[in-house]
Amino acid sequence: MGKANVWLRVLSLMILSASLHVPSRAQESRSLGLQTLVQPDLNLMPVPASVQLGGGSMRIDPGFTVFLTGHTDALLSGAAGRFMDRLAKQTGLLMTTNPVSARTPIMVVRVDHDSKPVQELGEDESYALEVSSNGATLTAPNDLGALHGLQTFLQLVSVSPDGFAAPAVIIKDTPRFPWRGLMIDAARHFIPLEVLRRNIDGMEAVKMNVFHWHLSENQGFRVESRKFPKLHEMGSNGLYYTQDEIRGLIAYARERGIRVVPEFDLPGHSTAWFVGHPEFASAPGPFTIERRWGIFDPAFDPTNEKVYKFLDEFIAEMAKLFPDHFFHVGGDEVNGKAWGANPKIQEFIRAHDLKGNAGLQLYFNKKLQGIVSKHGKSMVGWDEVLDPTLPKDIVIQSWRGQASLAEAAKQGYRGILSNGYYLDLGWSAARHYAVDPLGDAAAGLSPEEKQRILGGESCMWSEYVNAENIDSRIWPRNAAIAERLWSPQEVRDPAWMYARMHVLSAQLEWLGLTHQHNYTRMLHRIAGAASAEEFNALRTLADVVEPVKDYTREQTATEPATSDTALNRVVDAIPLESRVGREFGEMVDKYVASSCHDAGLGAMIRAQLVAWRDNDAKFRPLEQRSYLVKEVAATSLDLAEVASAGLAALDALEHGGNTDEAWKAQQSAVVQQAQRPKGQLLLMPAAAIQKLIDAASAGGSCAAPRQ
Amino acid sequence: MGKANVWLRVLSLMILSASLHVPSRAQESRSLGLQTLVQPDLNLMPVPASVQLGGGSMRIDPGFTVFLTGHTDALLSGAAGRFMDRLAKQTGLLMTTNPVSARTPIMVVRVDHDSKPVQELGEDESYALEVSSNGATLTAPNDLGALHGLQTFLQLVSVSPDGFAAPAVIIKDTPRFPWRGLMIDAARHFIPLEVLRRNIDGMEAVKMNVFHWHLSENQGFRVESRKFPKLHEMGSNGLYYTQDEIRGLIAYARERGIRVVPEFDLPGHSTAWFVGHPEFASAPGPFTIERRWGIFDPAFDPTNEKVYKFLDEFIAEMAKLFPDHFFHVGGDEVNGKAWGANPKIQEFIRAHDLKGNAGLQLYFNKKLQGIVSKHGKSMVGWDEVLDPTLPKDIVIQSWRGQASLAEAAKQGYRGILSNGYYLDLGWSAARHYAVDPLGDAAAGLSPEEKQRILGGESCMWSEYVNAENIDSRIWPRNAAIAERLWSPQEVRDPAWMYARMHVLSAQLEWLGLTHQHNYTRMLHRIAGAASAEEFNALRTLADVVEPVKDYTREQTATEPATSDTALNRVVDAIPLESRVGREFGEMVDKYVASSCHDAGLGAMIRAQLVAWRDNDAKFRPLEQRSYLVKEVAATSLDLAEVASAGLAALDALEHGGNTDEAWKAQQSAVVQQAQRPKGQLLLMPAAAIQKLIDAASAGGSCAAPRQ
Repeated sequence: MGKANVWLRVLSLMILSASLHVPSRAQESRSLGLQTLVQPDLNLMPVPASVQLGGGSMRIDPGFTVFLTGHTDALLSGAAGRFMDRLAKQTGLLMTTNPVSARTPIMVVRVDHDSKPVQELGEDESYALEVSSNGATLTAPNDLGALHGLQTFLQLVSVSPDGFAAPAVIIKDTPRFPWRGLMIDAARHFIPLEVLRRNIDGMEAVKMNVFHWHLSENQGFRVESRKFPKLHEMGSNGLYYTQDEIRGLIAYARERGIRVVPEFDLPGHSTAWFVGHPEFASAPGPFTIERRWGIFDPAFDPTNEKVYKFLDEFIAEMAKLFPDHFFHVGGDEVNGKAWGANPKIQEFIRAHDLKGNAGLQLYFNKKLQGIVSKHGKSMVGWDEVLDPTLPKDIVIQSWRGQASLAEAAKQGYRGILSNGYYLDLGWSAARHYAVDPLGDAAAGLSPEEKQRILGGESCMWSEYVNAENIDSRIWPRNAAIAERLWSPQEVRDPAWMYARMHVLSAQLEWLGLTHQHNYTRMLHRIAGAASAEEFNALRTLADVVEPVKDYTREQTATEPATSDTALNRVVDAIPLESRVGREFGEMVDKYVASSCHDAGLGAMIRAQLVAWRDNDAKFRPLEQRSYLVKEVAATSLDLAEVASAGLAALDALEHGGNTDEAWKAQQSAVVQQAQRPKGQLLLMPAAAIQKLIDAASAGGSCAAPRQ
Repeated sequence: MGKANVWLRVLSLMILSASLHVPSRAQESRSLGLQTLVQPDLNLMPVPASVQLGGGSMRIDPGFTVFLTGHTDALLSGAAGRFMDRLAKQTGLLMTTNPVSARTPIMVVRVDHDSKPVQELGEDESYALEVSSNGATLTAPNDLGALHGLQTFLQLVSVSPDGFAAPAVIIKDTPRFPWRGLMIDAARHFIPLEVLRRNIDGMEAVKMNVFHWHLSENQGFRVESRKFPKLHEMGSNGLYYTQDEIRGLIAYARERGIRVVPEFDLPGHSTAWFVGHPEFASAPGPFTIERRWGIFDPAFDPTNEKVYKFLDEFIAEMAKLFPDHFFHVGGDEVNGKAWGANPKIQEFIRAHDLKGNAGLQLYFNKKLQGIVSKHGKSMVGWDEVLDPTLPKDIVIQSWRGQASLAEAAKQGYRGILSNGYYLDLGWSAARHYAVDPLGDAAAGLSPEEKQRILGGESCMWSEYVNAENIDSRIWPRNAAIAERLWSPQEVRDPAWMYARMHVLSAQLEWLGLTHQHNYTRMLHRIAGAASAEEFNALRTLADVVEPVKDYTREQTATEPATSDTALNRVVDAIPLESRVGREFGEMVDKYVASSCHDAGLGAMIRAQLVAWRDNDAKFRPLEQRSYLVKEVAATSLDLAEVASAGLAALDALEHGGNTDEAWKAQQSAVVQQAQRPKGQLLLMPAAAIQKLIDAASAGGSCAAPRQ
């Protein structure tokens, strides 16, 4: 077989490199004779289903253009225009003013037919993209595949020794799952439309296809209702989306191959509804918009027939506004207190022989499902709504675990996974990446049952995010989840994922996403009028800390946060994952694995530790001037101290010295002290420094620490 | 006199600090007993006319608000709303949702009356701002002063040990000159409206009050003309402003206290007009839109009466569209070739006894002035238009030198200075800052003549700028010119200016200006998929180079740039002034002045030189992958080599060694080689390294190099 003509599934590549213990980063593979298999600059994310590499590359010149052949429509020509704008931004070349020369490579797009007027679950999203030195051809059965192929091409283009170019390649691509979503909670903190738009652009870049819009909460009702205007007028502090704005956003998403699924959370999470309509609540009003975070008592009264009449009319209005076939009704976290406290409701439960509050919620869900169904929609709900007596067209979104998703599939229900994909918990991208909708409990399902697992959704709950920092909570890490949902299951090497994710991260800024530069801006606010050296010292510290994980922020707050709390602290500004911290950890792992014989690595580790040890002195003047810096002063000191401990360990490893138990205990105590969160921050290099201490303590061979 | 009650003119402060050789940065002054005179965190730019410091500060809490008392109007309440938004961004506090408590300090704004419906030259722009721990009061005779005072308050607010705060202060402020402008050339490169808007926001922040909009050029006619639609339809490649957009921008500027003066450059610089209207040219057509840069032959035919009929109708239309009293007609750089080549025109010159082509242009200008005047406007022109036979209401904008401005003032004409304020020439902010409209030739004018010098304008000619990099050419350096035009003449210490300018620079990013983060983005494009270390190496190099100055870029280009040339090179991405380079130079100056006895400085210089010396190795892999990096590879090597030379000099200074003439010649040759521009870049640290070499060569006492 000729080198350039081997169809090669990326997944087999990955298996190969894994079995050979080959580093999966492309360039490193070269020395191992894999150069024909892996393209150095192929930074595609998500990884396509199959990739065949050719020879040479296609130059991107100012005369480059796109020709639409076959079926064309407004969506496609709009996409081609956006594609050209994006390419111009990405390259800095002027794409529009030059005449096309016959010799300039161009892209031909051939689409067979349009996609459905209202985008549907399960439409064909496949495409084929062929790039050679003469030009590119993108073919797809419909618009959706073409949209994905254009994004792939944009990721192929990069700067080269001779200009901008795309490598010669043949890609055949199709998604693993049909439901690949991002949920944004626009209710706890209102998220302006422009922020949603740029995040939808980001979704398009990583081939996600569902924007799940969480629109009502205790803290706000965010949609204009013309039938029930008191909902938004009294329940939103004036922060809501008009119906025109919503139609505009749906059209915007549609142009990018993205469905919009609205969520109105019922019967709990509903305080904001009752500010204008206390008559539907289970307890007497009046109600005010909730400002605290947590689970609250107010809930709709399932025993009140007027509630269903209201919901019927309300859902009729919303079903028309949101054209997608799926309609999310929430259904999570009803604590039952309002029902328990209302004798009339308890009497109803007895009279109807319902199984307590859970039975009452099921009663409510069945009636709600009927209403949703009546208006032509399929109901989606969080996993609490799962009950075998509900019709099979509902979809379960699992936030509590993969077991409930597997259970739903066994019972014949379709499901989407969000457990493991909560962006607000601050997990590493690698940890999200390791979660597979068909993993764990779902791995044992039959093929037919597996078909019912439609995909997954990352979730951005917004207690601690606003327009300023939401991008840095979602990006670039959401790309790891997007890849999990698009690419073959076997694509799962985290190092390769990180390498590509960092490249993508810079590209995402061309879309207007602010995950990188708002970090800098927010640090400037925190630092105030600082010298360059002082600012760099703050940045050095901020680069190696992460916010506390899961729900620790709530649990450790001295005073509970509310929707009025300013999000201007270091914990709000920093990315959720420290790249410097992770890369330092990898360096230490390699060094220890080399029995500390890799002098180059040793020198790099030392240089880093010296910089950290000396950083606190540069940082000090700032802490006198800014309350926002003062709260991280203890962490700055911790960094200096663990760095000193690391240097002591490195000295011992390189030159010997007393590293007895007492020494180890003393150094480890420094690390343990530093690992206690302060200012709701975690000091990421501490764990790697503990490894250096352990290695030094283990004596001569640092690769074999004591068991 | 009580400490806190001394009225203190900043100018006397500056004279004091200068005469004492006191470092002018506020904090450094402290050790010299000036702490009562200078407020450490008072980073105001432009410096107000007078400042009295009080004790304590006013907290900025979420309940902070502005109350308008006295006269109010839409402009003022709009400004208050924008002020609150800006304050919220700057502090990260939520300003809108909390109820105001009686104890929360607020700001009261009291304005006597509105400003003129169409803002006029010379309106009172003064204001008084009093801040105490109890609150703030801003008073102004009219809206304009209030706008300026709000901006001053925003600059007073900074992070403090206890939260955000503004120091207690009493400011009385008024501008030195009534005409403080920024000209943007939106014709050579079209500049989108959103870019103009954010630059107008920047102008408001530094109290500039004239936006001079350069709208026609050989390379484009940028205004919709309803009377003569062929002008924009055929002369703009579709890149023009509609009349609605223009009205919108004028309103936007008006809300910010900024007049908009349009410029239509006549009779030269006019190729784009003739694409649609060849009949008005001095040579037969057809004409095409010019893509090259430079001075071109096409010019209006002053002997053709139809030209004046056309201009009368055109200016009638434009005079209505642009409400400002001043109307700029250009008048510069007519090379006369088209006139010389046309026998009919030469015959006209003879027949009318005109003094050659210059006389013909004067003839044209007089008729043009009559038309402008007929439509109720005063004519502004570049200094070529100056002639004593023109009426005294015209205004001369001097680009060729201060002498012509002084000459105009003597003849009774009003003038504005732009010579010395050309932002595209890449001068340092300090060099612009040193240029004074009443300096040089103007210094000898009589008080009455000086009154005719209305102020000045910075000019952003756009051969090498587009929407992506224009902000970094204008900001923050334009603030130095704004200060020159607003603040007392005696405020002129460049070190103090730079200290405040760097603080302002970060604040300007809150307005959406991209001067900082587009630099990073453009470097990412240049680097492509780089590792963090590789990217930092590129950044380290980019941070110490500047584009070649003045018109050297044109003169050194291997192939002449045109309007189709991509502006994606390192020379396009970097700021025009290297902060790192400047600060390194200051460090070396101090070190040499200390007779090289300041060991701390020596260590810092050494650390910097080592980092530069070692940077090239980290940078190398990138140059193999990106053509945009490759062109700066020689400069990277130069940096390594001058750094090595600097280290050799530092070694000699610290430890002695052979530094004879041969050594000096050898080291200096390295520096001279590096000082030759490559890739149209200047390597800024080279000059300071030469000083180290000179000092080392001078032997024992480095403070006294050989005469």
